[in-house]
Amino acid sequence: MLDEVTITRAIVEDFMKTFVEYTDVDVAIVGAGPSGMVAAKYLAEGGAKVAVFERKLSVGGGMWGGGMMFPRIVIQDEAKHILEDFEIHYWTHKDGYFLANSIEVVGKLVSKTIAAGAEIFNLMSVEDVVIRDDKITGVVINWSAVELAKLHVDPLSIRSKVVIDGTGHDADVCRIVERKIPGALKVVGEKPMWAEVGEKFLLDATKEVYPGLIVTGMAANAVTGGPRMGPIFGGMMLSGEKAAKLALSKL
Amino acid sequence: MLDEVTITRAIVEDFMKTFVEYTDVDVAIVGAGPSGMVAAKYLAEGGAKVAVFERKLSVGGGMWGGGMMFPRIVIQDEAKHILEDFEIHYWTHKDGYFLANSIEVVGKLVSKTIAAGAEIFNLMSVEDVVIRDDKITGVVINWSAVELAKLHVDPLSIRSKVVIDGTGHDADVCRIVERKIPGALKVVGEKPMWAEVGEKFLLDATKEVYPGLIVTGMAANAVTGGPRMGPIFGGMMLSGEKAAKLALSKL
Amino acid sequence: MLDEVTITRAIVEDFMKTFVEYTDVDVAIVGAGPSGMVAAKYLAEGGAKVAVFERKLSVGGGMWGGGMMFPRIVIQDEAKHILEDFEIHYWTHKDGYFLANSIEVVGKLVSKTIAAGAEIFNLMSVEDVVIRDDKITGVVINWSAVELAKLHVDPLSIRSKVVIDGTGHDADVCRIVERKIPGALKVVGEKPMWAEVGEKFLLDATKEVYPGLIVTGMAANAVTGGPRMGPIFGGMMLSGEKAAKLALSKL
Amino acid sequence: MLDEVTITRAIVEDFMKTFVEYTDVDVAIVGAGPSGMVAAKYLAEGGAKVAVFERKLSVGGGMWGGGMMFPRIVIQDEAKHILEDFEIHYWTHKDGYFLANSIEVVGKLVSKTIAAGAEIFNLMSVEDVVIRDDKITGVVINWSAVELAKLHVDPLSIRSKVVIDGTGHDADVCRIVERKIPGALKVVGEKPMWAEVGEKFLLDATKEVYPGLIVTGMAANAVTGGPRMGPIFGGMMLSGEKAAKLALSKL
Amino acid sequence: MLDEVTITRAIVEDFMKTFVEYTDVDVAIVGAGPSGMVAAKYLAEGGAKVAVFERKLSVGGGMWGGGMMFPRIVIQDEAKHILEDFEIHYWTHKDGYFLANSIEVVGKLVSKTIAAGAEIFNLMSVEDVVIRDDKITGVVINWSAVELAKLHVDPLSIRSKVVIDGTGHDADVCRIVERKIPGALKVVGEKPMWAEVGEKFLLDATKEVYPGLIVTGMAANAVTGGPRMGPIFGGMMLSGEKAAKLALSKL
Amino acid sequence: MLDEVTITRAIVEDFMKTFVEYTDVDVAIVGAGPSGMVAAKYLAEGGAKVAVFERKLSVGGGMWGGGMMFPRIVIQDEAKHILEDFEIHYWTHKDGYFLANSIEVVGKLVSKTIAAGAEIFNLMSVEDVVIRDDKITGVVINWSAVELAKLHVDPLSIRSKVVIDGTGHDADVCRIVERKIPGALKVVGEKPMWAEVGEKFLLDATKEVYPGLIVTGMAANAVTGGPRMGPIFGGMMLSGEKAAKLALSKL
Amino acid sequence: MLDEVTITRAIVEDFMKTFVEYTDVDVAIVGAGPSGMVAAKYLAEGGAKVAVFERKLSVGGGMWGGGMMFPRIVIQDEAKHILEDFEIHYWTHKDGYFLANSIEVVGKLVSKTIAAGAEIFNLMSVEDVVIRDDKITGVVINWSAVELAKLHVDPLSIRSKVVIDGTGHDADVCRIVERKIPGALKVVGEKPMWAEVGEKFLLDATKEVYPGLIVTGMAANAVTGGPRMGPIFGGMMLSGEKAAKLALSKL
Amino acid sequence: MLDEVTITRAIVEDFMKTFVEYTDVDVAIVGAGPSGMVAAKYLAEGGAKVAVFERKLSVGGGMWGGGMMFPRIVIQDEAKHILEDFEIHYWTHKDGYFLANSIEVVGKLVSKTIAAGAEIFNLMSVEDVVIRDDKITGVVINWSAVELAKLHVDPLSIRSKVVIDGTGHDADVCRIVERKIPGALKVVGEKPMWAEVGEKFLLDATKEVYPGLIVTGMAANAVTGGPRMGPIFGGMMLSGEKAAKLALSKL
Repeated sequence: MLDEVTITRAIVEDFMKTFVEYTDVDVAIVGAGPSGMVAAKYLAEGGAKVAVFERKLSVGGGMWGGGMMFPRIVIQDEAKHILEDFEIHYWTHKDGYFLANSIEVVGKLVSKTIAAGAEIFNLMSVEDVVIRDDKITGVVINWSAVELAKLHVDPLSIRSKVVIDGTGHDADVCRIVERKIPGALKVVGEKPMWAEVGEKFLLDATKEVYPGLIVTGMAANAVTGGPRMGPIFGGMMLSGEKAAKLALSKL
Repeated sequence: MLDEVTITRAIVEDFMKTFVEYTDVDVAIVGAGPSGMVAAKYLAEGGAKVAVFERKLSVGGGMWGGGMMFPRIVIQDEAKHILEDFEIHYWTHKDGYFLANSIEVVGKLVSKTIAAGAEIFNLMSVEDVVIRDDKITGVVINWSAVELAKLHVDPLSIRSKVVIDGTGHDADVCRIVERKIPGALKVVGEKPMWAEVGEKFLLDATKEVYPGLIVTGMAANAVTGGPRMGPIFGGMMLSGEKAAKLALSKL
Repeated sequence: MLDEVTITRAIVEDFMKTFVEYTDVDVAIVGAGPSGMVAAKYLAEGGAKVAVFERKLSVGGGMWGGGMMFPRIVIQDEAKHILEDFEIHYWTHKDGYFLANSIEVVGKLVSKTIAAGAEIFNLMSVEDVVIRDDKITGVVINWSAVELAKLHVDPLSIRSKVVIDGTGHDADVCRIVERKIPGALKVVGEKPMWAEVGEKFLLDATKEVYPGLIVTGMAANAVTGGPRMGPIFGGMMLSGEKAAKLALSKL
Repeated sequence: MLDEVTITRAIVEDFMKTFVEYTDVDVAIVGAGPSGMVAAKYLAEGGAKVAVFERKLSVGGGMWGGGMMFPRIVIQDEAKHILEDFEIHYWTHKDGYFLANSIEVVGKLVSKTIAAGAEIFNLMSVEDVVIRDDKITGVVINWSAVELAKLHVDPLSIRSKVVIDGTGHDADVCRIVERKIPGALKVVGEKPMWAEVGEKFLLDATKEVYPGLIVTGMAANAVTGGPRMGPIFGGMMLSGEKAAKLALSKL
Repeated sequence: MLDEVTITRAIVEDFMKTFVEYTDVDVAIVGAGPSGMVAAKYLAEGGAKVAVFERKLSVGGGMWGGGMMFPRIVIQDEAKHILEDFEIHYWTHKDGYFLANSIEVVGKLVSKTIAAGAEIFNLMSVEDVVIRDDKITGVVINWSAVELAKLHVDPLSIRSKVVIDGTGHDADVCRIVERKIPGALKVVGEKPMWAEVGEKFLLDATKEVYPGLIVTGMAANAVTGGPRMGPIFGGMMLSGEKAAKLALSKL
Repeated sequence: MLDEVTITRAIVEDFMKTFVEYTDVDVAIVGAGPSGMVAAKYLAEGGAKVAVFERKLSVGGGMWGGGMMFPRIVIQDEAKHILEDFEIHYWTHKDGYFLANSIEVVGKLVSKTIAAGAEIFNLMSVEDVVIRDDKITGVVINWSAVELAKLHVDPLSIRSKVVIDGTGHDADVCRIVERKIPGALKVVGEKPMWAEVGEKFLLDATKEVYPGLIVTGMAANAVTGGPRMGPIFGGMMLSGEKAAKLALSKL
Repeated sequence: MLDEVTITRAIVEDFMKTFVEYTDVDVAIVGAGPSGMVAAKYLAEGGAKVAVFERKLSVGGGMWGGGMMFPRIVIQDEAKHILEDFEIHYWTHKDGYFLANSIEVVGKLVSKTIAAGAEIFNLMSVEDVVIRDDKITGVVINWSAVELAKLHVDPLSIRSKVVIDGTGHDADVCRIVERKIPGALKVVGEKPMWAEVGEKFLLDATKEVYPGLIVTGMAANAVTGGPRMGPIFGGMMLSGEKAAKLALSKL
Repeated sequence: MLDEVTITRAIVEDFMKTFVEYTDVDVAIVGAGPSGMVAAKYLAEGGAKVAVFERKLSVGGGMWGGGMMFPRIVIQDEAKHILEDFEIHYWTHKDGYFLANSIEVVGKLVSKTIAAGAEIFNLMSVEDVVIRDDKITGVVINWSAVELAKLHVDPLSIRSKVVIDGTGHDADVCRIVERKIPGALKVVGEKPMWAEVGEKFLLDATKEVYPGLIVTGMAANAVTGGPRMGPIFGGMMLSGEKAAKLALSKL
C-alpha cells in the first residue's frame, strides 16, 4: 500500500545521503550544458568522482532551442566519435556536416552522463569559489531559487580538486575569480560570429586558466576572446572531451 | 570548411520540412511531461504519426525537481515494465517502491520517445482546438514566445485524428473545451493528496472525455476530480500507456 | 581548524535528521505567527511532537510592525499569564491594558517555543492537505522559494494527527479544504473592526472546523466571520492556548 | 472549401522559401525606420537583393507618433523628390516646410519598399555580426521574441555583402562592432537639439564606418556625434537615399 | 533655415485643428485593424466624416505577424475586389486561395484609408461610450499612455452618429456596453477554430448590436459566438465592407 | 544656528501631537479629491473637527490632469459661488460654462481647506471601518506605503461621528461595507458618459448610504449608478457642499 | 444644457492656444518643486514670460511628505519674507525656526505662482536642450507618459532665453549638458547632511553654470557639491528667489 | 472595555516618546544582523544609549535561513561565551564546532538585546550620514517603505557620538561615505570563501574606518577585503563584541 510519508522519506534520505557524499569530490563542473555534460561523462568513465551543478531546473542550456527555435543542430565530422559514444542519432546534410534533433541530443547527453556515474545537482547555483592560498579548492553553492526569490540565505561549500567552468557565454566562475582575485585572469568576451575560426579557437581556449580552474565550451571562448559560432556543436563537445582529459591529468 | 549560411540553411530546411509534414498527424499530444512522452513512444511504436507540442524550452514538466527540489522520484512495482521499456535505471527502496534519479528519467523518456519516431515540437503552445461539428479534429498552435513576449500574432492549425491532453494539473486543452463548448465537459479540479487512491483513480480517469480528446496524467485527475499524488510516477506512466492504447484503437 | 566541508556536512546532516524525523508528527501547525507559536509551545510542553511550517524566512507574521509601523502592541489583562509564561517584558498603559515592544515579543515567542521542544521549519509553505476518507491526516509542503521563483516542482507530504491553521486573515489551509472538499466548511471572511467583540468572538471561533483541522488566531475569525481587532494581541494568544488544549485532547 | 491545414502549409512553405532564399543577400538593412526603408527601396530598384530586419512587430520606428503623440511630421524642401517617389501626401506649412500625416507616411514607406522588391523580416533582431578577417560579411539574427521572453536560444546567420545600420539613436550594430572589435569604431552619441545643423551633419555622417558596414539615419548622427533634430524627417530620408547609393557602389 | 519652434508650432497647430474638428463626426471606428480600416475607407469614400481611434502606436493589430510570426496571410476569392480596391499585391496559392505579405497589406490598408479621407488617431483608447437615453451617441477617449503609465487623468468625449467596434477578440466597446447597460447585449465569446464556418458566420455577425453601435471583424464573432478563423483575412475585410454599408445607411 | 536634531524633533513632535488629537474627530473624510476638500472646508467652517485621509502623496486626485492631460477643467454656473468661496480664478467660455486651470484649482482647494481648519493626512489609506452594532463609528487607517511596499503591518483606528466616502469611482469605503456587512448597501457602478444627467444625478446620490456613512463626488455616482461626467467639476463641488451640510446636521 | 463636445472643445482649444503661445518664452523652468515655483512667481511678477515644466502629474516634488511622511517642514527666519509673499501660514517653534504644514505650503506655492502669471505644464518632461553654438536656447520636451509607457515617440522643442534647472537632487538638465557637451560642466553630487552649511552653500551655488542655464534648489547643491539639508526649506526658497533675479538680469 | 482609540493612542504616544528620545544617542547601529545585535547588547550593558536601525520588517538578516535554507548554523569554540551570554541553546558537533538552530538564535539575540536596554527601530533605513567637518555625527534615516514604494519623501536626522555599520556584505554606510567624501575610505569587497582565514581576518577588520564610524561583521570584511565565511557565526559575534568595546572607549 502506498504511503505518502514513506515516499517522502525515501526521497529525502536518498538524496541527502548523495548530497553529503558529494560535498567532497574530485571534479566540480559548473553548468550542465553540452560541454559540461561531455566532460562529466568522460571524467566519470575515467574514474573521477564528479558533481555537476546546474542553475536551472532542466539541463541542456541553450541547446534545446536549436537555432532560432528550430530544434536542429549541426555537428561536424571531427566530433563524430562523441556522437557515437553518446549514441546520438544523426543524419548527413552535406560532406562534413551532420544534423541532429537538439531535443534528443539533450536527452542522450543527460542520460549517458548520469549512467556513467556523474551526479547532476540541478536548481543549484555557484555563488563563489573556495580558495586556499592561490588555488581554487571548491565551490560555494546555493539553491538558485534563493536568488530567484530574492531571499537572503547563506550558501554552503563543496570541496573539489578541480573546478570546471562550463557556464557558457557568461563564464560565471571565471568572472567571480576575475572580480575577487585581482590579476588572476581576464574575461575578454567573445568576438563576432566566425564559425570556422571559432571551432578551432575553442580547443586551444579549453585550458586551466587559474590553478584549479579549467574552462570549457563557450565560457572558454568568452575568457580568451574567441569568435562566436552559432548552433554548431562539434567544437563544444570536443572542448568538453579535452576538459575531461586535462582534469583527469590533475587528479 | 564551415560556412554559417550552410548551417543556417541546413537547420531551417530540415526543420521546416518536418514541421510542414507534421501539420497533419494521427495524434497530437499536448505537453511533454512523463505521461505525454510515454503515450508518444507507445503510439509511435504502434505505427501512429505523432506530434508532441511542449510549451516550454525543455521537456519533462515538473519531474526534473523530484520532490521539493530533491531530484529523486518514486515508482511502484506495477509500472516496472515501463521503466524497463525506457531503460531507466532504478533501485529498490522497499518492497514495491523503486527510486530513480528524476533528471536521468527525463533524459531517458525524451530520448526513447524520439527514437521511437515521435516528433517533439518545443516552444509551441496550444491556444485552441480545431472543431468539425461535434468532434475535435486538431489543435491551434503558436510559438509560446509570442505569449511570453506579449505580442499579438495569429496562430496556425494542425490536423489530428486524436488529441491527447497531457498538460498536467491545469488540463489546458480540457479547459479550452469546457469554456468554448458549453456542456462538453467539466474540469472538476484535483482533490487533496491521497497517493494510494490517486494512483488507482488515475487509470480510470484516463479516457476520451469528448469526441477526439483523450486526457492523461495529472490532467486526467484534474478533469475527473481525483486525489493528488506527489512525486510518485507509476500511475502517470501507466496512464500514458493507457492513453496510447485508447488512441491507437481510434485510428 | 575550520573546514568548510565539515561545516556543510554538520548543517546538512543535522537538519536532515530532524526533517526526516518530523515527517510524522502529532501536530502540524501552519504559520508561525503569535497564535501558532503560542499553540506550539503549550503543545510541546504537553508532550506532543510539533512541527511549525512558516512560509516566510522570518517568523512573527504581522507582529513585527506593531501598529502602522510603530513597533508597539497592546495586550489586555486576560492574557497576562501568557506574557509571563513567555517572559515577555510589558508595562502598564491604563487599567487592563499593557504595552509591549512588538520586536521583543516576537523574539521571546520564537525562543520560548523552540526551547519548549517545538520544531519550526521556515521557508516552507503548505500547498495542500493529506486526506484519508473524511479526515485530514497531514499536510503537503514545499519550499516557498519554489512558488516565489515560479518553478514547477512537486511537493512532499507530512503525516500529522492534527493540523492547526494559524495562517492569519487568509486562512490558507481552510481555504484549501473549502475549495477541494465541497461542503466541508465555509470561510466567511472577517468583519469590520470592533476590538471588544472581536477578542471575545475569537475564543469561540477557535475550534475544530473539519475532522483533524483546528483553526486559531485571525484565521479563526476569518473562517467564522468575526470582527477585526487591530494591534491588540491578548485574544490571539488566548486562541493559541485554546488550540493547544483542543489538539492535546485529540492525541 | 476552406481548410485550416492548407492555410497553415501555404503560409509556412511560402515564408520559408523566402527566408531560406534571403539567407544570402546583397544588402542586409537593420531597422525598418524611415532611413532604412528609403535605403531599401532605392537599393531594390537598383537591382540589389535586400533584406530588412526589424526587431518590432510593426515597422516605422518612432515615426508613428509624430511629435509628442501628435501624428504629424515636418519635411523640408530638399527631400521633396523622395516624398514624390513614395507618393506621400503632403501639404505646405511655410516656405520650405511641408507637413505630412505620420501614420500615412509609414504606410507609404512600407508598401513602396516592398513593392520595389525588398523583403522585410519583422520580429527579428540582429544580435551580432559575421566577420571574415577585417570585414563584416553578414549578420547574426534571432527572433526578437526570444529576448523578450528571456529564453536561451541560439541565433542563425545571414550572409550579406553590405550591412546597413539603420537602428536609430541606439546604433545597435555599430555598438556591437565597437564592443567586440577593439579600435574598429567609436559611437560618440548624439548632441543636443539643433535641427538646422543636424540635418546637414547627417548627410556627412552617412558613410561606411567599418569595412562592410554603412550607417544611416539617427544611427549615423549617434556614431559621429551630430546634433539631434526632432520630428523633421527630410534629412533622415536623404540619408537613406545616400546609404543606398553607397551600398550600390560596393556591390 | 530650419527653426525648431516653427516645427513645433506647425505640428501642434495642424494636429489640434484636426482634432477639434473630429470631436464631432459621422462615424467613430474603434480599432485600426483590418476590418476597421476597410470600413473606414469605404465610409470615407461614401462621404462620411470618419475618425478611427487606435490604442497602439502602430495600426494593423495582429496582422503584422501573419501566422506564427511568418508574415504571410491567406485571403480567399470572395474578397478579391477588396484587395484590388486597396491595390494589395497578392499571388495565387491554390484555387480560391491567395497569399499576401502581411507587412505590405498593413501598409496598403493604412495608406489607402487615409488617402480616402478617414482620420486615424493613434495612441488613443476608448474608455467608455456617450449615451443619450437608449442610444450610443459618441465615445469617451483618452491617451492610451495614461493607462499604460498608470496615471489618473480624466478623458474627453467625441460625438458620433454611429460607433463601430473593430477591437478584435476583446470586443472592448461591446464589453463596456454589456457591463454598464444591463440587458443591452451579451458578449458570448468566440468558439474553437473552424475557418470555413467562421468566415460565413462573420458576415451575419456584422450588424448593429445596440442602437448606434455596429460590430465588425473578430469583435463580431466574439459578440455572437462564432468560430475562430486564424490567419485568413477575407471574411475580416468583407465584414469591414458590410459594416461600412450598414453605417452609411444610418447617416 | 541650524541643528538637524532640533529640526527632526520639531517635525515629529508637532505632527504627533496633531495626529493623536485627530484620532477622535467629528468627521473623517476619505479621499482629498475635489468633493472631499470642498466638504472638508465647509465642515471646518461649520465648526466640525475634520480629518481628511488621502492615500497618495499629493492631494487633488484626477483633477491635476484636466482632460486628456490638458490641464483645464470646465465648471458650470451653478457652482460659481464655490469657485468664489475658494478664490479660484476662472474665465468664461460660453454662457453657463467657465474654464479654469486645473493645477491652480487644486492649489486653491488644498490651501483654503487647510486654512479653514481641516487637517489633511496624506500617505494614509483607509483599510476598513470601525463598527458598533449597526453604525459606522470610525475608520481603520494605515500608511499607504505599507501596501505599496507589500509589507505585512497592522493598522490603527480613528473614531469619528460621521465618515464621508470621497474616494472617487472606486467608492472604496462603500465597497468595504458592501463586502463585510451583507445587505448593508450595493455599489452599482457608474453608467456611460452623459454629462447633463450625471451632474443632476450626483446631487441626489450624495446622501447617507449606511448609518454613519455619507458618500460624495464620483463615489456617490458609482454607488447609486449614475452616469459618468468627464472633466466638468460643478456637480462634484456641489456634492461636496451638500455632504458637508448632511454631516453637520448629524453632529 | 451641458454638452460633452462643447466641454471637450473648450478644454482642447484653450489649452492648445496657451501651449502654442508658450513655445517661445523668456524663461523655461524645469521642475515645479519649491525653488522652481518661487523662481517662477518672482519672474512672472518681474514681467517675464515663464513656462514651468513638471514631469509628474502633481507639482511640489518631495515637499508633500514633510520629513519621513510627517507633513511638516521647518523654515528659518531668513526666508520669512517669502512665506509672507506666498501668504503661507506658519508658527514659531523656537527662535529662528518656523514650522508649516507641508501640504498647505505646496497649495500656496502653486496657486500664487499661477496667479502671478507663470504657466505650469505638468506631465511634461525635458529630454534634452536646444543649443545654438555655445549657448542653451531652449528645451526639448515630451509627455512624461511617453517614457513611463515605454513608447517610442519624438519630442518637440521650446525656445527660451534662459533655462532654470530646478529638478532637485538629480539635476537632470545639468546632467544632460554634462553628458552631451564635453567639458561644459561637472555635476559633483551632493555631500552628506549638514544643514547649517548646506543652507549657506546653496545660495552661492545658485548661479549660471553654462551660458543660458541657471541652476536652483537641490540641483544647485548637487552640481556644486554642497551638503544635503533635510526638510528645512528656507534655503530652497531663497535660492529660487536668487535664480529669478539672475534670470531677470539676463532678459 | 476595549476601545480602539485608546489602543491607537497608547501605541502612537509610547512609540513617539521613545522615537523623539532616541533622536540623540550615544551609538547608532545600522543593521540588526547578528554582529549589530551583539554590539548593541554589550553597548547597552556598558551604559550607552543605543539605537539600532533595521531596514527590514524583521531583524536577523541572513541568519534565519542557516545554510541553503537548512536552519542550522555553526559556531566555534572561541565564541562560546557569547552564546552563553545570550542563553542560546547549542550542541556539540565535533571538537571546536557547535551547532545551533538559526531560528532560535535570532529569537535569543533580539530578545536579549532589547532586554539589555537597546532600542531597535525596524522598517527604517539609513540614507546618509550627518557630518561636522571631518567627523560623522549622526545618520539620516527614513522609513524603508518610502524607498520600497518609490515615494519621494525627505528623511530626518539622528545625532550619535558613534555610528556602527553592521549592514553586511553591502557595507551600506561605508559606501555612502566612500561615494560622498572623496578619499575617506575604500570598500574593497569581500574575497572568495576561506572560513579559517576569514574568521581571523574579521576581528582585525572590525575597527574605526573614518572618524565616528566603526564597521562590524561582514561589512568589516567587505571594507577591508577579507575572505567570505559562510554559515559560521563565531567571528560575526566576536566582531560585534569588539565593535561594542571600541565604541564604548570613544564615549
